[in-house]
Amino acid sequence: MTTTPLPAPDELARARLLVAPSLDGGLVRELERIAGRTAEPLTDVPPPSGVPLLCVGETLPEALRTDRLLWFHSVNAGTDPLLSAGPWPAPALLTRTVGRMGERMAQYVLGWILAECQAVPEFTAQHARAHWERLPTELIAGQTALIYGTGRIGAAVGRLLGACGVRTVGVARTTRSGPPPGAGRGVVPGAAPVVPGPGRGVPGFDLVVGAGEDGGALAEARWVISTLPLTPATEGFFGAARFAAVRGATFVNVGRGATVDMGALEDALRDGRVRRAVLDVLPTEPAAPDDPVWRLPRTVITSHSSGITADEDVAVDFAACWEAVTAGRRPGLTVDVGRGY
Amino acid sequence: MTTTPLPAPDELARARLLVAPSLDGGLVRELERIAGRTAEPLTDVPPPSGVPLLCVGETLPEALRTDRLLWFHSVNAGTDPLLSAGPWPAPALLTRTVGRMGERMAQYVLGWILAECQAVPEFTAQHARAHWERLPTELIAGQTALIYGTGRIGAAVGRLLGACGVRTVGVARTTRSGPPPGAGRGVVPGAAPVVPGPGRGVPGFDLVVGAGEDGGALAEARWVISTLPLTPATEGFFGAARFAAVRGATFVNVGRGATVDMGALEDALRDGRVRRAVLDVLPTEPAAPDDPVWRLPRTVITSHSSGITADEDVAVDFAACWEAVTAGRRPGLTVDVGRGY
Repeated sequence: MTTTPLPAPDELARARLLVAPSLDGGLVRELERIAGRTAEPLTDVPPPSGVPLLCVGETLPEALRTDRLLWFHSVNAGTDPLLSAGPWPAPALLTRTVGRMGERMAQYVLGWILAECQAVPEFTAQHARAHWERLPTELIAGQTALIYGTGRIGAAVGRLLGACGVRTVGVARTTRSGPPPGAGRGVVPGAAPVVPGPGRGVPGFDLVVGAGEDGGALAEARWVISTLPLTPATEGFFGAARFAAVRGATFVNVGRGATVDMGALEDALRDGRVRRAVLDVLPTEPAAPDDPVWRLPRTVITSHSSGITADEDVAVDFAACWEAVTAGRRPGLTVDVGRGY
Repeated sequence: MTTTPLPAPDELARARLLVAPSLDGGLVRELERIAGRTAEPLTDVPPPSGVPLLCVGETLPEALRTDRLLWFHSVNAGTDPLLSAGPWPAPALLTRTVGRMGERMAQYVLGWILAECQAVPEFTAQHARAHWERLPTELIAGQTALIYGTGRIGAAVGRLLGACGVRTVGVARTTRSGPPPGAGRGVVPGAAPVVPGPGRGVPGFDLVVGAGEDGGALAEARWVISTLPLTPATEGFFGAARFAAVRGATFVNVGRGATVDMGALEDALRDGRVRRAVLDVLPTEPAAPDDPVWRLPRTVITSHSSGITADEDVAVDFAACWEAVTAGRRPGLTVDVGRGY
């Protein structure tokens, strides 16, 4: 892990609070209350030199990528736009908002897999035609979901699906995306699959495998669900080789669009290896009306709606980070800028 | 409870096995194997007098409603068509198939409430127009579902929704529809709401109230879910008075259509007290294309598909009843013909 020092108390005390102009007034007042100072707009105008900066927003203007940046709190969970826009100013702390995002994404995933199994779109269409006909439905209990990413969001998805009787297999890329410290054992790429023993499993999963050993699990899965962040290591992660191992699973992506090779996905949909696709995210967002992605077979696109962070989430998570930093603890929502999440 | 004697062993030994001609050949062979005799078709031709009868099917022809009927096993869970078609021949045992119906209905209910909260029909329609737009979604966790019927099916619905963080309130009509013996305490109509204490709650529910005290719960509920059977006591149960207490709940009916006064439901949908309706069952099924029920606002009808019993369910449940009867125990799937379920 890339460990940055925490902001020094005297620096934090005199830092200026800059918040993105897009933030709602009520949220800004809440941030001012937490930080105990008045907020100023986060713009691309360089602030007077020598004054340390505490920023809250979505993106960091070039002019602020300086060693005066003490701490940036992202209003989003995904910080790839922040980190890819330029080199991160080394000592600055980066924290993020997760809020109830894991819970939201888990309900999204469960909602869409049940919608398929309960034929929700088909019954809706039948109703519109005033047509009475029994349609086959499918039980999700006892089937297998393969969930890429075993961090907060992947674990929330695993917990919810597991509560509904689904067998959950997590795929971890490194030990760092594994269990919280003390809760279990992570997986090193190249290692044998870990079958959790009593009291040492990865929470949210019946089983966790490494990203290099997912071939067998892909063939067994009824659902392949990605919660992966976008990093140099995950770009195009779901490509032809991975899709070739799929045997009729529905693919659900609530992670990042660029983790998928869309040509490979299209091929797999056309030859039936991928049964359906539910894509909350795309490599290019928003998709224009003439984007061919709308014409992928048996696919639905949901406009990056699965993990919206509410203003309340930003305030709650910033308050938790503030409390940790001022107490001298590293916030649990710290982003490892070297790793990218 | 109306207690009928169990079939006497010597009578059962010489009974003829009559099965509905609609049953699949594989299922019939399985029933023959369980009962240890060859099956004959269940028709409306009276069999030779004096021979006891063991029947498996959906309906009982008039000619067989005689004291020669020893035992009828219903391939369905709902036995109201059987019981309302004529007087039940008093000493005959009636058992039914439940199978994984509770689990199926629970997944149906969860699937449709999540479909609403995740805007599945709206996103599907947006996708068809190649239109990218975030739509608001809603978390089900922490909201309240009021579930009418605390028997096997109601409890299965309660367990699954509870596992997803929904607060579940069961409505019991009598102590008999309450918890399994020894598992908790039932509710007497007119009694105060029962707040389950540790180890004595009704499984599947955070709270159980009597049908006479559901007004407050109706006002709090985000979902009103019925699993009620059709009996003289439940016909038109969901009428104007009950719907008047609803404050924006979605109504889901997986019980029986005739438990609902459809005019009262329509009024409640039109004035917004009922937010949406998901109707698996109707008073008249199947609905003809010109039935006005298709034009109810914000309603979807799913053609009585939520609790299909598979052939495997019939075989498994008949085998369990057979084993109990031949061991001298009353099967757990016995229908109380006086009560109607």
